[in-house]
Amino acid sequence: MAGAVGGGRGCVTLGGAQIRDLLDAKHNVLFDCDGVIWNGETAVSGAPEVVSLLKQRGKRVFFVTNNCTRPRENYVQKFSRLGFTDVAEEEIFSSAYCSAAYLRDVARLQGKVYVIGCGGVMKELRDAGVPVVEEEEDAEPGASIYNCPLDPDVKAVLVGYDENFTFMKLAKACCYLRNSECLFLATDPDPWHPLRGGRITPGSGSLTAALETASSRKATVIGKPSRFMFECIASQFDLDPTRSLMIGDRLETDILFGSNCGLATMLTLTGVSTLEEALAYRDSQEPQQKDCAPDYVVESVADFLQALDD
Amino acid sequence: MAGAVGGGRGCVTLGGAQIRDLLDAKHNVLFDCDGVIWNGETAVSGAPEVVSLLKQRGKRVFFVTNNCTRPRENYVQKFSRLGFTDVAEEEIFSSAYCSAAYLRDVARLQGKVYVIGCGGVMKELRDAGVPVVEEEEDAEPGASIYNCPLDPDVKAVLVGYDENFTFMKLAKACCYLRNSECLFLATDPDPWHPLRGGRITPGSGSLTAALETASSRKATVIGKPSRFMFECIASQFDLDPTRSLMIGDRLETDILFGSNCGLATMLTLTGVSTLEEALAYRDSQEPQQKDCAPDYVVESVADFLQALDD
Repeated sequence: MAGAVGGGRGCVTLGGAQIRDLLDAKHNVLFDCDGVIWNGETAVSGAPEVVSLLKQRGKRVFFVTNNCTRPRENYVQKFSRLGFTDVAEEEIFSSAYCSAAYLRDVARLQGKVYVIGCGGVMKELRDAGVPVVEEEEDAEPGASIYNCPLDPDVKAVLVGYDENFTFMKLAKACCYLRNSECLFLATDPDPWHPLRGGRITPGSGSLTAALETASSRKATVIGKPSRFMFECIASQFDLDPTRSLMIGDRLETDILFGSNCGLATMLTLTGVSTLEEALAYRDSQEPQQKDCAPDYVVESVADFLQALDD
Repeated sequence: MAGAVGGGRGCVTLGGAQIRDLLDAKHNVLFDCDGVIWNGETAVSGAPEVVSLLKQRGKRVFFVTNNCTRPRENYVQKFSRLGFTDVAEEEIFSSAYCSAAYLRDVARLQGKVYVIGCGGVMKELRDAGVPVVEEEEDAEPGASIYNCPLDPDVKAVLVGYDENFTFMKLAKACCYLRNSECLFLATDPDPWHPLRGGRITPGSGSLTAALETASSRKATVIGKPSRFMFECIASQFDLDPTRSLMIGDRLETDILFGSNCGLATMLTLTGVSTLEEALAYRDSQEPQQKDCAPDYVVESVADFLQALDD
């Protein structure tokens, strides 16, 4: 293997031959989704073929996304719609799915979850058999932060992306968290997400920051860069980190996640982070900053095609 | 003057005679409101008499509150309703009033303000002649974070306490702040507020944290512990900090504010912070923590009665 593949978080730009060398050494490829294999409703050109070819070459492929807005079954549909024809539900690990798994298998929650989040989170929790507070705010005329009912069975608050976030939800969550035995979880730390047309939208991390400030507590974050999502995959598929490659577009989540879990890491430039930002992390004097620098860089996952075509 | 009044942020508990000595040295008394002279709609026992007696003894009295929910004219009504009979509008400095003053006099804003906040903030901005974006969200059926109109004249975002806070407001503010020339202000940093019955409600600081995270920017905070509110008073009343006493119930806002502005500081125990917390700050090794320790402590502002009755 060429020196370029020696690693050391060197932000080494790889061409086809070097990618082939890298893949010879790795058995498992973990992809982030948005900004890596698609952008919104558009597949990154070549990405569906890359996923198919990796599988044909005997690699195990997983999708690891902080996006909590869809349940896994909807992801399968999205993969199919965008031309990824051979992705199974079991290969998809979203922060919503992993949050439900955490509450069921790690926290072994005895009680209900109060959810700030969207349908994807609620569906995964229900599928996992974790009881949730069913919101009926619209059915409570006159309910205010002073008198709204609080469910005494709530033993966890889970915060995710929620376009229906309101002050009332924040205030209720805040009241639940006054009980120090109530768990405080966040699906992911993403501060914002790009939208079509240059706009951005606040992420789960933004809503979590509001609740952390109001409650004087820190959330346990399930999504990348926390290690839990890798542990969740590894518990089901017996992954060897040293034979695994994490490919992502955000240095502070995807690449740091890979570093935290002992994986080789690759930045693709089809999403949020830039090569300049990667180099700045690489050249930083702070160890924690260095962990955000990827081992490798490609322009696009389409660069794998040359390595896989033969 | 007794050694007890020597200061040094010693958390010295004062009795009547020592309070008299302290007042001999001070010409201006600044009160926080909630937790100091009232709690919600109940005056702290003796507080109205203390304010009247201070004025009769020739002291100048000011009210400095991070609460941004009322315009000054409503505060005058509240003072009157709770038995404070001689408080003038000019003596009341709220974070809403001072935010408007900042935008008009310091920032000299040429453009509109997008406000996350309540009626108090809107009224003060209008009274100051600062143009605000008038929200008509309900009049926009189908408006979403993807397509909602953004006002090109917005040159500042101001965040205060807002029980009608929504994801849409957060997303809009976030879009405005992508323009680095758009100012980012917060009325106050209060993380939460106590409510009747043991509940709490998220404060402006909580909503500001959400927007700071989503925008990757830091807000300029107008309210305590920032110096600006003192500068605002001083610009109108020519205050000498060394002859001024700040009385408050929150160490991290009121007392730190006094320290930041070079005022003598006094904690009263009728509100949020405790004597134990004050002593912990006093005994801390960190200079910034020490600034949250008050010079003096009283059980209640009613302890001034003995010093003022003669």
